Amino acid sequence: MIAPPLLKPGDTIMFVAPAGPLDRQRMELAKQRLEERGYRIKMRDDMFAETGYLAGSDQRRAEELMQAFLDPEVDAVFPGTGGYGTMRMLELLDFAAIRANPKLFIGFSDITALHSALNQHAGLVTYHSPNPMWGLGSEDNLQPFSAKYFFGAVEQAAHDELADPQDGYLIECPDGVPQPVAWGSGRARGRLVGGNLSLVAAVEGTPYAIDTQDAILLIEDVHEAPYRIDRMLRQLQLAGKLEGLRGAVLGQFTDAYDEDEEQPAEGDDFSVNGVLRQYFADAGIPVLMNFPIGHYPQNCTLPLGAEVEIDADAGTLRVLPLLAPGH
Amino acid sequence: MIAPPLLKPGDTIMFVAPAGPLDRQRMELAKQRLEERGYRIKMRDDMFAETGYLAGSDQRRAEELMQAFLDPEVDAVFPGTGGYGTMRMLELLDFAAIRANPKLFIGFSDITALHSALNQHAGLVTYHSPNPMWGLGSEDNLQPFSAKYFFGAVEQAAHDELADPQDGYLIECPDGVPQPVAWGSGRARGRLVGGNLSLVAAVEGTPYAIDTQDAILLIEDVHEAPYRIDRMLRQLQLAGKLEGLRGAVLGQFTDAYDEDEEQPAEGDDFSVNGVLRQYFADAGIPVLMNFPIGHYPQNCTLPLGAEVEIDADAGTLRVLPLLAPGH
Repeated sequence: MIAPPLLKPGDTIMFVAPAGPLDRQRMELAKQRLEERGYRIKMRDDMFAETGYLAGSDQRRAEELMQAFLDPEVDAVFPGTGGYGTMRMLELLDFAAIRANPKLFIGFSDITALHSALNQHAGLVTYHSPNPMWGLGSEDNLQPFSAKYFFGAVEQAAHDELADPQDGYLIECPDGVPQPVAWGSGRARGRLVGGNLSLVAAVEGTPYAIDTQDAILLIEDVHEAPYRIDRMLRQLQLAGKLEGLRGAVLGQFTDAYDEDEEQPAEGDDFSVNGVLRQYFADAGIPVLMNFPIGHYPQNCTLPLGAEVEIDADAGTLRVLPLLAPGH
Repeated sequence: MIAPPLLKPGDTIMFVAPAGPLDRQRMELAKQRLEERGYRIKMRDDMFAETGYLAGSDQRRAEELMQAFLDPEVDAVFPGTGGYGTMRMLELLDFAAIRANPKLFIGFSDITALHSALNQHAGLVTYHSPNPMWGLGSEDNLQPFSAKYFFGAVEQAAHDELADPQDGYLIECPDGVPQPVAWGSGRARGRLVGGNLSLVAAVEGTPYAIDTQDAILLIEDVHEAPYRIDRMLRQLQLAGKLEGLRGAVLGQFTDAYDEDEEQPAEGDDFSVNGVLRQYFADAGIPVLMNFPIGHYPQNCTLPLGAEVEIDADAGTLRVLPLLAPGH
């Protein structure tokens, strides 16, 4: 795995739109804030293209992403948002060329398909994180928790302050942030894989299916009813993808119920938490549920394709030191 | 493939609940109507079990289904409805025992996972059809079109009247029934596979993934937005499942848009039909779209695992003669 260089003041970040269309106002706000922090922002004129639910054609979006990785002026690649569309461009990407030009890559939700493809096909560590439209360019900006772990992960100076060179850093969840709940016991180390559950399920059976063997699986989702979460987890289970796990991080599953729908009680086996419990509570591996990550203002940044450690007894997640570039 | 014997007056049909909970009133109405037609109905006391979104535990539902196939008194197995749950019991079924006791099996929606498992793991022809809760037990009963092709498929006497021993029968769509539209040209013969697109996608990557090689793929769905249909078809495409197709039957995709959502124009590439067009219009195979099958009152019954023929020039679908039992 290659861990791309972290950001330094003066670096250039390229905004891209590999999935759904972008909102100009939010992208502009994200640009201003990152410029104030010392970065230069680059983007293509056609980044705001809108073709149905896509930010322009598959060809346009793939070319833009390849340009971002190949342009020597660019140091990091920030997809503006998720939505849907990354699965449509996987076959148009040149993963060898990306591997030869490793750059910091962020995002979440639909970006999950790119994360796993970059991890597995380009050997690149990437960052599951807030993005320009949902966090960096939100009216009320990144929440303190989200900002701490975003910049602590992707910015060299903030990272050096946060992380111990030998032990990495613990994710600390102060009051006001969802409190992780541990299932199982003991500790587990493994490379972190996954992201948005819908995407993890949607690449099953394809060459982009996620390798979960000896890994720690991260999942989160939005607008998926409990039976749909069940169906996706059952797909992973039948595909053997839950068998070789060392641990799991279960993030937020927001808006799982219709507004007019009565929510099942917390202890109900068929509530969201009940479904998660069915698959993970007695899996014999350390699990952290209700972790502050996902479609939620408290959205922790974590490295994908890199090592993390779950301590189920302490109820904590530790990000281990990244591999040096070229390791 | 084994084509199980069709129904004769005096035969016994067992109602089962392998997925979601059943409605007593509709099941009672379906029972009455089938009894009036000369059948005996059998069911277990616990068929109306309700555990969250499931009709009782996985074990209960699996035992009930196995009992239906193994009980020598039972001639046909009618799941009351779909919903969700069949994927949770696939590993609890004894397909060799089912193969040794071939019986007529019907249903649609979530039942798709059982259809394909019975086709592929028990070598049994099954019937994609209305069910007791949605059609047979509906207040206004099966619509004439649905009734004609349901009984014409599953009842020996009606079948003999409908089908030519050499040529089988054409599905005819009179006024008031959705009119199929052909894409591509020429004719294709192949075994029919598929059903509900969400389930076809949800078994990808598992031992129950659907073998589409040299097949004619049937898909329909309900409550799935265009981008979700796109995502599922992209999964199948990336998995290579659209490559070896001989043809496709695209059924109804009902309630694809939220009520308060503006529907895209018919010609829009990102409407439901636009998405289907992207994958199937130029696939070089005969395709029938807007076929009257799915979550819709006009729900044609078609045999799965058996041969059908699409004639794209005539815009028709022909059900070919079934293999003899034990063939």
